[in-house]
Amino acid sequence: MAPIKSTSQQFVYAFADGDGQNKQLLGGKGANLCEMTQIGLNVPPGFVITTEACLEYLSSGTESHQRRRLPDTMMKEVKSAITRLEKESGKGLGDPANPLLVSVRSGSALSMPGMMDTILNLGLNEETLQGLIQQTGDARFSYDAYRRFIQLFGHVALRISDEVFDEAFNSIKLNRGIKEDVDLDSSALKQVCDRFLQIIEQHLGEPFPQDPMEQLEIAIKAVFGSWSGKRAVDYRREFNITPEMANGTAVNICTMVFGNRGDDSATGVAFTRNPGSGENLLFGEYLTNAQGEDVVAGIRTPKPIAELEQEMPRLYQELQVLRNRLEQHYHEIQDFEFTIEQGVLYCLQTRNGKMNAQAMVQTSVDLVKEKLINREQALLRVQPEMLEQMLFPRIDPTTHATPVARGLPASPGAASGQAVFDADRAVRIGADGTPVILIREETKPEDIHGFFASLGILTSRGGKTSHAAVVARGMGKPCVAGAEEISVDVRKREATIGEHTIYEGDTITLNGTSGGVYIGEVPMVEAEFTEALKKLLGWADKVSRLKVMANADSPEDGTRALKYGAMGVGLCRTERMFNATDRLPIVVEMIVAEDQKQRQIALNKLLPIQRDDFSALFRVMSPRPVTIRLLDPPIHEFLPSQEHIQYDLDKLHQLRSTVSGMNILADTVQNLFPADQLPNVQTFAETHLVDEAIQQKEAMLNKVNALHEVNPMLGHRGVRLGITFPEIYSMQIQAILEAAAICIQDGVPIEPEIMIPQVSTVKELERIKEYVQVVQQQVEEKYKVQLKFKFGTMIEVVRACMRADSLAKSAEFFSFGTNDLTQATFSFSREDAENKFLPMYNENEILHDNPFEVLDTSGVGKLMKLAVEWGRAVKPDLKVGICGEHGGHPASIRFCNQIGLDYVSCSAPRIPIARLAAAHAELKNG
Amino acid sequence: MAPIKSTSQQFVYAFADGDGQNKQLLGGKGANLCEMTQIGLNVPPGFVITTEACLEYLSSGTESHQRRRLPDTMMKEVKSAITRLEKESGKGLGDPANPLLVSVRSGSALSMPGMMDTILNLGLNEETLQGLIQQTGDARFSYDAYRRFIQLFGHVALRISDEVFDEAFNSIKLNRGIKEDVDLDSSALKQVCDRFLQIIEQHLGEPFPQDPMEQLEIAIKAVFGSWSGKRAVDYRREFNITPEMANGTAVNICTMVFGNRGDDSATGVAFTRNPGSGENLLFGEYLTNAQGEDVVAGIRTPKPIAELEQEMPRLYQELQVLRNRLEQHYHEIQDFEFTIEQGVLYCLQTRNGKMNAQAMVQTSVDLVKEKLINREQALLRVQPEMLEQMLFPRIDPTTHATPVARGLPASPGAASGQAVFDADRAVRIGADGTPVILIREETKPEDIHGFFASLGILTSRGGKTSHAAVVARGMGKPCVAGAEEISVDVRKREATIGEHTIYEGDTITLNGTSGGVYIGEVPMVEAEFTEALKKLLGWADKVSRLKVMANADSPEDGTRALKYGAMGVGLCRTERMFNATDRLPIVVEMIVAEDQKQRQIALNKLLPIQRDDFSALFRVMSPRPVTIRLLDPPIHEFLPSQEHIQYDLDKLHQLRSTVSGMNILADTVQNLFPADQLPNVQTFAETHLVDEAIQQKEAMLNKVNALHEVNPMLGHRGVRLGITFPEIYSMQIQAILEAAAICIQDGVPIEPEIMIPQVSTVKELERIKEYVQVVQQQVEEKYKVQLKFKFGTMIEVVRACMRADSLAKSAEFFSFGTNDLTQATFSFSREDAENKFLPMYNENEILHDNPFEVLDTSGVGKLMKLAVEWGRAVKPDLKVGICGEHGGHPASIRFCNQIGLDYVSCSAPRIPIARLAAAHAELKNG
Repeated sequence: MAPIKSTSQQFVYAFADGDGQNKQLLGGKGANLCEMTQIGLNVPPGFVITTEACLEYLSSGTESHQRRRLPDTMMKEVKSAITRLEKESGKGLGDPANPLLVSVRSGSALSMPGMMDTILNLGLNEETLQGLIQQTGDARFSYDAYRRFIQLFGHVALRISDEVFDEAFNSIKLNRGIKEDVDLDSSALKQVCDRFLQIIEQHLGEPFPQDPMEQLEIAIKAVFGSWSGKRAVDYRREFNITPEMANGTAVNICTMVFGNRGDDSATGVAFTRNPGSGENLLFGEYLTNAQGEDVVAGIRTPKPIAELEQEMPRLYQELQVLRNRLEQHYHEIQDFEFTIEQGVLYCLQTRNGKMNAQAMVQTSVDLVKEKLINREQALLRVQPEMLEQMLFPRIDPTTHATPVARGLPASPGAASGQAVFDADRAVRIGADGTPVILIREETKPEDIHGFFASLGILTSRGGKTSHAAVVARGMGKPCVAGAEEISVDVRKREATIGEHTIYEGDTITLNGTSGGVYIGEVPMVEAEFTEALKKLLGWADKVSRLKVMANADSPEDGTRALKYGAMGVGLCRTERMFNATDRLPIVVEMIVAEDQKQRQIALNKLLPIQRDDFSALFRVMSPRPVTIRLLDPPIHEFLPSQEHIQYDLDKLHQLRSTVSGMNILADTVQNLFPADQLPNVQTFAETHLVDEAIQQKEAMLNKVNALHEVNPMLGHRGVRLGITFPEIYSMQIQAILEAAAICIQDGVPIEPEIMIPQVSTVKELERIKEYVQVVQQQVEEKYKVQLKFKFGTMIEVVRACMRADSLAKSAEFFSFGTNDLTQATFSFSREDAENKFLPMYNENEILHDNPFEVLDTSGVGKLMKLAVEWGRAVKPDLKVGICGEHGGHPASIRFCNQIGLDYVSCSAPRIPIARLAAAHAELKNG
Repeated sequence: MAPIKSTSQQFVYAFADGDGQNKQLLGGKGANLCEMTQIGLNVPPGFVITTEACLEYLSSGTESHQRRRLPDTMMKEVKSAITRLEKESGKGLGDPANPLLVSVRSGSALSMPGMMDTILNLGLNEETLQGLIQQTGDARFSYDAYRRFIQLFGHVALRISDEVFDEAFNSIKLNRGIKEDVDLDSSALKQVCDRFLQIIEQHLGEPFPQDPMEQLEIAIKAVFGSWSGKRAVDYRREFNITPEMANGTAVNICTMVFGNRGDDSATGVAFTRNPGSGENLLFGEYLTNAQGEDVVAGIRTPKPIAELEQEMPRLYQELQVLRNRLEQHYHEIQDFEFTIEQGVLYCLQTRNGKMNAQAMVQTSVDLVKEKLINREQALLRVQPEMLEQMLFPRIDPTTHATPVARGLPASPGAASGQAVFDADRAVRIGADGTPVILIREETKPEDIHGFFASLGILTSRGGKTSHAAVVARGMGKPCVAGAEEISVDVRKREATIGEHTIYEGDTITLNGTSGGVYIGEVPMVEAEFTEALKKLLGWADKVSRLKVMANADSPEDGTRALKYGAMGVGLCRTERMFNATDRLPIVVEMIVAEDQKQRQIALNKLLPIQRDDFSALFRVMSPRPVTIRLLDPPIHEFLPSQEHIQYDLDKLHQLRSTVSGMNILADTVQNLFPADQLPNVQTFAETHLVDEAIQQKEAMLNKVNALHEVNPMLGHRGVRLGITFPEIYSMQIQAILEAAAICIQDGVPIEPEIMIPQVSTVKELERIKEYVQVVQQQVEEKYKVQLKFKFGTMIEVVRACMRADSLAKSAEFFSFGTNDLTQATFSFSREDAENKFLPMYNENEILHDNPFEVLDTSGVGKLMKLAVEWGRAVKPDLKVGICGEHGGHPASIRFCNQIGLDYVSCSAPRIPIARLAAAHAELKNG
C-alpha cells in the first residue's frame, strides 16, 4: 500500500476542526472526539494525528523503528497543535509552574485489541512533577501520576515488559509490608518512580527522556509502529480485516483531566436511559475523588448516579443536559464516560449503548414517540434474533447458579420441574399441574405425550436435530439435548452426573438457551411480550412484503401462534396428529394391515378424528389460510423399535416358561390333596394368552423388519406412500375437505391448502390431484357447499427444483422444505453430520455455518432461486413460501425476501423474530 | 381431425403408381407393395385406397356404419383399378370362366395389432366358385378357398364372432369323425361352406352378397371402420400413437396367388442372409404345394431353402436374383415371403430382417465391403445394447431348460458351477479350478474374495443394486439377485426352492441376463468378440468425440478393459483394494485405532500395498490416463456387522462357561487321584485367552455401534473422511504419486488423475489439494522425478453442481457420479427405492424408467448440464466425464455427448457397447 504523498498534506487536526465522520482518516476514537467537541460537549481539548501520517511513517522504512521517519511536516504541525492546547488550557508542556499533561492513544477505523494503546500523563518529568506537587499540593497524587506515566511509556513506547515494572512495584510493597496499592504513601510511590526510572535507563542505555516534546515524538512513533506489529497483524488476519476497512492508526493527543483532585472531583459511567428496561432516566454510577481505574479496581463501591443530584446538584443538572444533547445528536441511547475535575464536567467518551432486548424494544418505540428517529430506524435498530430473549422464560441473569452438567442448547427457554424418566409417568405426575421435566436417553415419536405433559426435555444422547430437539422447538419448550455426562437409568428411575444422582421427583432446572442443567429450582425471568414489542411488530408488518405464518399442528399451537402475530398456518404436520396416544394404536393397526381392506378399516376410524382435528384448527385460524401437509415420514417411524419388541419378546418367553412351570406345580398340588382340602392354587390355564401375545409381537417384529430401510431419509415416505397406499392420502384429503365443508356450513370462512411432501415428479402431483378431485366432488355433493382450497407441493427434493416449471402447472403454491432440501443438496444426513463431522467442518472453516441452521444461499439458495424463477415463468402468480426451520432465521428470511418468496413459516415463538426480520429484509433491500 | 376435402383428390393408387415413400397416405404395407412393384419385383398386381379416403369416410358420420359414406369418387376409382387388374391378369372379377380373386388388407402408417386385418379370396360366389373348380380342376382347393373367404368376410366385414364359425366347422368334423382339417374332403368342405353361408344369412337377415363389387365395398367400409373401433383406439392410447404418427388406415387390394396349385407351386419365407450368423447365403424354408398357413399350422415340416435348388432349379435362380435385387434396393438384409404359383415366382412381402447381434455385426461389415452401405450406416444399423449378447456367455437359445426359480437379472451372462454357501468355501473349493457358484442370502464387502473365486453369484435378497449385483456387474460375472423363492440355510449348507433342495457341491446354472436359476448344467454359448466386431468398433472410435474409459480396480481389470478397447481407466475404486483378504485386517486395524498414532501404524502397512497396486495398474494401462478415486464409502462398511459380532460374542460366552466347568472338573479329578496315577485330564488355564477374545469382540462392537449411521448414504464418507482423518487420504495420495514416480523411473510413462469423492464445497477440495502439494514435493525430492498428474473432483453431490464455477477453479477435471447424484436429486435411496416403491412407480407410469438404469435427463441431466456450463465458464478446457453406471448405457451416453462431456467410464464388458453408443451419439447429433 503506497503512502499518500502530498506536500501540502495536513497531518494534524484539532478536535474542534476534524471531520467527525471521517474514521478512515482520524480513526474511530479521533473522529468521535472531534464530533463530541464540535457539538459543544466539554471534551478536554486535544488533537488527532491522521492515519495517513501513520502509513507514511510505516512505508518510510522497515522493521526497526530507527530507520523510519515521520512525515516531514508532521512534528511541526504537532508543535503548533500543542501551542494551541497550551493557549486553550493556560498550561504549558514542560512548564513546571503549570504543567500541561496529555494522554496519547492509538485509534484505528475499527476497534482493534492487540494494538499498543494508551500513555497517560505524558509531559511529566523531574521538573514538572515538582510543579504538579506544588500546584495540587498532593504529592501522593503526583507521584502516582508519574509512576503510571513511566510504566506506560516504558511499556508502550519502549516495549519493556509490564512484568518487569510489576515485579519492581511488588517488591517495594513487600519490603514495606503493604498489601493494597492505595496504602502506598507518597514516599513509597517516589521510591517506585525512582526504581522505574532505573529500569528505563537500563533498558534504553540512557536516562528517561526529560523533554516532553521528545517524549511525545517517541510515543507517536511507538503507536504508529504497533500497527505493523505481530499482534496487530495476526489480529487483522484472524478477523479478516482488510486494508480498506482499517488502514493505519491515528494518534489522539488529549489534555489530561483528573477526577481525583478532591471532593469537587468525580468520575463515572452512565447510560442516557436504563439499558435493562429502556426507562427514560439517566442510569449509571460514579465515584467522588477518584480515577476511572478505581471503579475497575473494585475497592470502592460506586454510587448510583441519582445520588449525584444530592451531592453536586449543579453538575447533576449539567449531566442531564449532556444526556439530552447526546441523544439529540446521536439519535441513539449513549453509554458515556465523564470526569468532574474540580467542579468542571468533562465528557471523555461516548458510544451507542448496549441494551437487552426489552430495553431495545422500549427505547425504539419511545424514540419514535419523541421524534428522535422514525419507524424504519426504530425497526432497524433492533436485531431480530435479540427478541428471543423476550419470548422465552429464562434463568434470572443476576443468579449465579452453577450447572451440574451441560448439553446442547437444543430449544431455547428455561424451566424447573420434577424429574421423570418416561412419558407415561410424565403424564401421570403432570396430570395435577405438577411441573415436570422429562429425562430420557433419547426420545422417540412414541414419547410425544410426554412432551405435552412436560415443561422441558433433557436427553443424554442426540444433537440439535434429534427427535427431542426438533419436537421441543416445535412446541416452544426448552430442551437440553445430548448432555453426555448424564447417565440415565430408566429402570431405576434415576440419572447420575458424576457424584450427583437425580431421583424421580427431584426438582431440576434446564436452561435450553445455554444448555445448562441445574439441580434444584433456579430463579426465572418470565417471557415478556410487551406492549412496546406489539407496537414495534405492528410497524414491522406494515413494512414487510413477506407474510409470516406458523408451523402449528393443533388448535393450541394455532392459538399460541396468533398471539405471536401469525398470519396463518404455513405448515400443519398431520403426522403429529397421528402420534397422539389415542390415535397411535389405530395408526399402527393401519400400518400392520395385511391388505387394503384391513387398512381401510383402520383409516375409517382415523377419518373422524382427523376431521375434528382440522375443523378445530380451522375455527381457530379462520379466515386465515391453513396449509396442511399430508403424511410425510416413513411409516415405520410410528412402530416401536426392533430392540423394543425384542425386549418384550424375551420377557414374554420368560413368562411363558414360568407359567408352564407353575401349571405343572398346580397340577401336582391338586393331585396331592383331597378335593375338599384343596389349597388356594390355580392352574394357569392361560398359557395360550401368552402364546397369542408372543405371536402378535412376532408379527409386529416381522412388519418392522419388512419396513426397515437402509437410508430412511431417502426412503418410502411422503408422496411415495401416498401413491403406493392411495387410501391413506385419500382419507386425509377427505378429512381436510369435510372439515372445511363443516366450517363453511357453520359460517366459519376457511380456505385450506393441501400440500404434498417429497414430490420429485409432476406425475406424482397429478396423481394425488386426481384423488383430490374425486374427494372434492363427493364432499361438495354430500355437504352441499362450494369448497375453496389450494393444492400445492413441498419443494424439498432437488429434482422438484429442477422440474419447477412442470410442477408449477399442477401446483397453486410451492413451499420450500429447506431441512430436507439442505440434506439432499449437501448429501449430508443431518443427524449423522451433526454428530460426526459438522462440528469439525465448522472449526476448520470448511463450512462457516451449519447449513441446517443458516440457509446455504450459494448452494441450496441457488437451487431455490432457480426453482422460483422457473416456476413463476410458467405461473407468474405462483404462491411460494418456506416452511423449513430456516423460515425463522433472519439471514435466511432476508434471502427469501430477495428471491421473491411470499411467505415464511416457523414455530410460534420465532414468529416475532421472523416478523421483524421480514421488515428488516424489505428495508435493507429498499 | 378434419378430413382433407378436395374435389380432384385421388383416392386409389395402383401398386405401379403409388409413392413408395408415402406411408402417411398409403400406409406401411401399401407403400411397401408399391415400392416392390416399382423396382421390378413380381408382386401380384393390386392397388391401394388411401388413408385420406378412410378419414373422409370416418368423418362423414358416426357410430353406425350405415350413416357413413365413402367419398363420392372413390368407388369409381376402385372400379377402374379393378378393370386395370382384370386387364393385367386376364381374369375378371365375378367372371365364372376365369375369376379374379383378391385379398383386402388394412394397413396404417404404423403396424397396429388390434385392427381388422385381412380378407382373402374375395370375388368368390356361387358362380365363380364353380368356375374356379372348373379352372383348377380342384374342388377341394376351391371349397377350401370359399369357406375361408366366407369366414373372414363374416368376421372382418360383418363382425360375426370367429367362434360361431369355428363351432360349426368343428361340429361337421365331429359328425364325420375327422380329426385334422387336411382330412376334410371337398364334400365336407362344401358342407362347411353351406353352413357358413347360413350363418351369414341369419346374421345379416339377407343372403351372403353375391356381387363381388358389393363384397368389395362392404369389406373396404369394414376395414375403414375398424380404425375407430374400440380395440384400435385403446391400442393407440396405450402406445401413445398420435394422429401425426398414423392417421387412418389404407386398404390394399391385391390379386390372389396360390402356392397350393400343384407340384409346380410352393410357398416360403426367406432371409437374404443368415440371420443367426450373418453368412452371405440365402436362408429360409419352403413347402411345395402349400399355402402360407400350412407352414404356420406345423403339420408339414418345411424344407431348407437349399433343397429348392434341386427341386425347382430355375425358380431357385430367380430367388437368388430376387435376393440380390432386394439387398441392392433396400441396402439391408431382407426377410421376405414368396409364393410360386404354377411355376411363377411372386414376392408377397419384404421387410428388414431381424438378426441376432453376431449377424448384425457381421453383415454391417460385409455390406460396407460390398459397398451397399457406408461406415456410418453400418454403425447406425447396430443398436449398441444388442452387443451385450456377444459379450457375455449365455444360455444356448436352442435349449429348453426350465428355471426352478427366478430372481432379478442383476448382472448379465450365464454360468454353471458347484453350489457353495460362503465365501471361504468358494475359495477353498474353487482353488483347483472347480467352477463354483456362490449362493448367499445377501453379500457383504467381507464376501469379496468369494466373488473372485466364483463364476456367478446368486442371492435370495436384495435388488439390482444390492452389494452382490453391483460387485458382480463390476467384475462382469453373472448374478441373479433377490430370488425370493430360494431359502438359504448357511449352517446346513443348503438352499431349498419349493420341493427342490440344492446341497453344497450340486451343479446349478445361473442366467444373469434373464434372472433364471437352473438345477444342473445347461448348455452355453460362449461370448464372441469377433473380428467383425473389432472392425466395427474401430470405425466407431474414429467417429466418436467421447472417449470410453473403464471402471477398473486391478491390473486384471485393466487388462480385460484394454481387450475391450478401453482408452484408459476412468474410475479406480481404491476401497476395492482395501477389501482384499490380505488387506482387510489392516484396514480394520486402521479403523479401530484409538488415536492418530495407532492409525498411522496401520496406514504405514497399507502404504506399500497400495503403492504396488497402483504401480501394477499403471504399468498395464501406460501411457493411458488412470483416474483414481480416494476412499469413498463410510468406513464402517469395512467392519463386520453388529449381528455378526453379537453372534460371535454369544458363542464366546458359552465357551467361557464350558471352559470354567471343565476347569472345575479337572481340579476335582486331580484331587481324587494320587499324583502318579493322574489320568490324562488338563486344567484349561486359558480362560484368560477367552476373556481377551471377548474383550476384543466387545471393543469391536463398541466401535461398530459408534460408527453406526442413520442414513449411511448421506453420512461420514468420501472427502468428509479425508478431512476428518487427513492421514488416510495422505497415505493414498502418497501411494499414487510414489507409484507414478517408480513407473517414471522405470521408463513407463504414466499420468495419474487423483479424484476426490463426495465433494460439496470448494474448501474441501482446496484442503485435499494442500495434502497433495505436500506429498508431491516429498515424492519428487525422494525419487528425483518430475511428476505429471491431474487433480479433480467427483460431481455426485447436488451442491457440487451448484458450485461448479468455484470448484472448477481448484479442479482440473470433473467426473459425474450419477449413481449418487441420482439418489440425491430424487431423494431416493437406491436400495430402498428398488425394493419398496420403484417397481410400482414404473408400473403406474409415475416414472417411465428406473432412473438408476436410465439417466434422468430432465432432472439429474439438467443439473449436469448446468454444472458443465458453469464449470467451463470458469475453465474452458475443463475435462469432464461420467463414471456412474449410466456411463455404459446408450441413451445416457447420447445425453453425455450432447452436453459436451469428454469421456464416459463403465465396466469392462460394457465398453464395446459404450464405444458404439458414443459413435451413434455423434452421428445422430451431426
